[in-house]
Amino acid sequence: MTLEAGSKAQPTIGVFDSGFGGLTVLRALMRRLPRARFAFIGDTARLPYGSKSRRTIARYAAQSAQFLVREQGADYLVIACNTASALALDAIQESVPVPVLGVIEPGASAAHAASTSRDVAVIATDATVQSHAYAAACQAHGLRAIEKACPLLVPLVEEGWTDHEVTAEVIRIYLEELKAEAAAQGLKPDTLVLGCTHYPLLRPLLERAVAADGIRVIDSAESTADAAVRLVNGHGGAVFQASGLTGETKIRCFATDSVEKFERLGSRFLGRPVGKVELIDLGG
Amino acid sequence: MTLEAGSKAQPTIGVFDSGFGGLTVLRALMRRLPRARFAFIGDTARLPYGSKSRRTIARYAAQSAQFLVREQGADYLVIACNTASALALDAIQESVPVPVLGVIEPGASAAHAASTSRDVAVIATDATVQSHAYAAACQAHGLRAIEKACPLLVPLVEEGWTDHEVTAEVIRIYLEELKAEAAAQGLKPDTLVLGCTHYPLLRPLLERAVAADGIRVIDSAESTADAAVRLVNGHGGAVFQASGLTGETKIRCFATDSVEKFERLGSRFLGRPVGKVELIDLGG
Repeated sequence: MTLEAGSKAQPTIGVFDSGFGGLTVLRALMRRLPRARFAFIGDTARLPYGSKSRRTIARYAAQSAQFLVREQGADYLVIACNTASALALDAIQESVPVPVLGVIEPGASAAHAASTSRDVAVIATDATVQSHAYAAACQAHGLRAIEKACPLLVPLVEEGWTDHEVTAEVIRIYLEELKAEAAAQGLKPDTLVLGCTHYPLLRPLLERAVAADGIRVIDSAESTADAAVRLVNGHGGAVFQASGLTGETKIRCFATDSVEKFERLGSRFLGRPVGKVELIDLGG
Repeated sequence: MTLEAGSKAQPTIGVFDSGFGGLTVLRALMRRLPRARFAFIGDTARLPYGSKSRRTIARYAAQSAQFLVREQGADYLVIACNTASALALDAIQESVPVPVLGVIEPGASAAHAASTSRDVAVIATDATVQSHAYAAACQAHGLRAIEKACPLLVPLVEEGWTDHEVTAEVIRIYLEELKAEAAAQGLKPDTLVLGCTHYPLLRPLLERAVAADGIRVIDSAESTADAAVRLVNGHGGAVFQASGLTGETKIRCFATDSVEKFERLGSRFLGRPVGKVELIDLGG
């Protein structure tokens, strides 16, 4: 099934996440590359990655990456998982012979382009914040970053409360805490980076919450898709970008366990039905 | 280190959970059996159990059970994990030569003692509700049960918002939905079973929420501890029960990964410092 890379009319893009949150990255990719083929894998049997060691995460992520390249013929890989991007991007790149893109550097790069104060805020899960990967990536761009863990936002999204007054209140509380912490450090963030693949579903609520402060929201799923388009066009020579979705975009979705939740919730993240999720065994 | 079972002045009670929520059960046990020794293991490397198959859960839980009996000399095991109690209690009992107690039957039995309408409501995680283990256990006692998944309550407890207006509002919404579903099925629950080891931390909020309806709250951690006292006294002959905690209760806590979160949050569940959590490797 593997196709020759680099010169095809239809590149295959492999997208990896520990769960199904990365479907928001796939959604952003599909909008920009409607003629590509996509293979998505969620390593649902072994989530959450956030509590695991760097070595274990690298081993797990490399197995998924190799599945996407060897079995699904992926010409490019997008690591749509903040934890794996933060802790294992080099190890994944070493495990496969195709270009690999993470979600963190594109988010930091977009924040750099958007910020005038040079101070940015990043909201993410506990694990991503503890890795300080966004702060490091922002610092490499000359930005000062404040990171804030928002552990309730993923469960609120998974409950489907993406436009709910409770969620609006939780966001208000987290952003108030963030503002107080930023002020205490002498920072004036003008840009808010969504550092979790679940958060794009909360973008309307988040934008409403920061609008009065003139803060701009950077969706790292969108930034990553932009970076992927540059990567694909740079490598393939042809311009694959096109506007709007055709009905022809080809997607296959795989999971390592528990396809039920993936199928039930995935369509909200993808913005269209995920269809049948195929169960695979990566061992270990 | 294994001691002879059944005739000791100080029995050792092994308590198992996939995470650290089961510390609420340990807390209830310590109040009743202050002279016992306790060994608690949280299989944090492999949580959540809720999305895993019955076979995998049985294998994992048996490994923890054997560790508690063989390495820690447990004379009795309490499975303070709803998923493992629902799906693997028989398999765990077959894997060790000591009496094993789960959390579901004691909760159902206490509901049977408390209910006069013979209709009970159970709130729990998605995985526990989908197993319908509480409904089956209640039915065996001649009760009709309605089960309601409350996925936001565990993250709210872990965020520390146990006495927060957001949590009160989330509880109000879940209980409204539960009442509507009960009414649609012609049920009139007079008893609410807390079917998750995190929920005892929400007991004050939950009791306030149902007080007006005259509904009684059954905490399955407390019911399980009551059942454990009956088991220990029945087997050991001696009366170990005593009122109040002495300073001498001996506890050792183990986890298979990520002791940081366990140590940081565990004391809220246990009601006293958990101390140093020892990291162990169960393989697999």
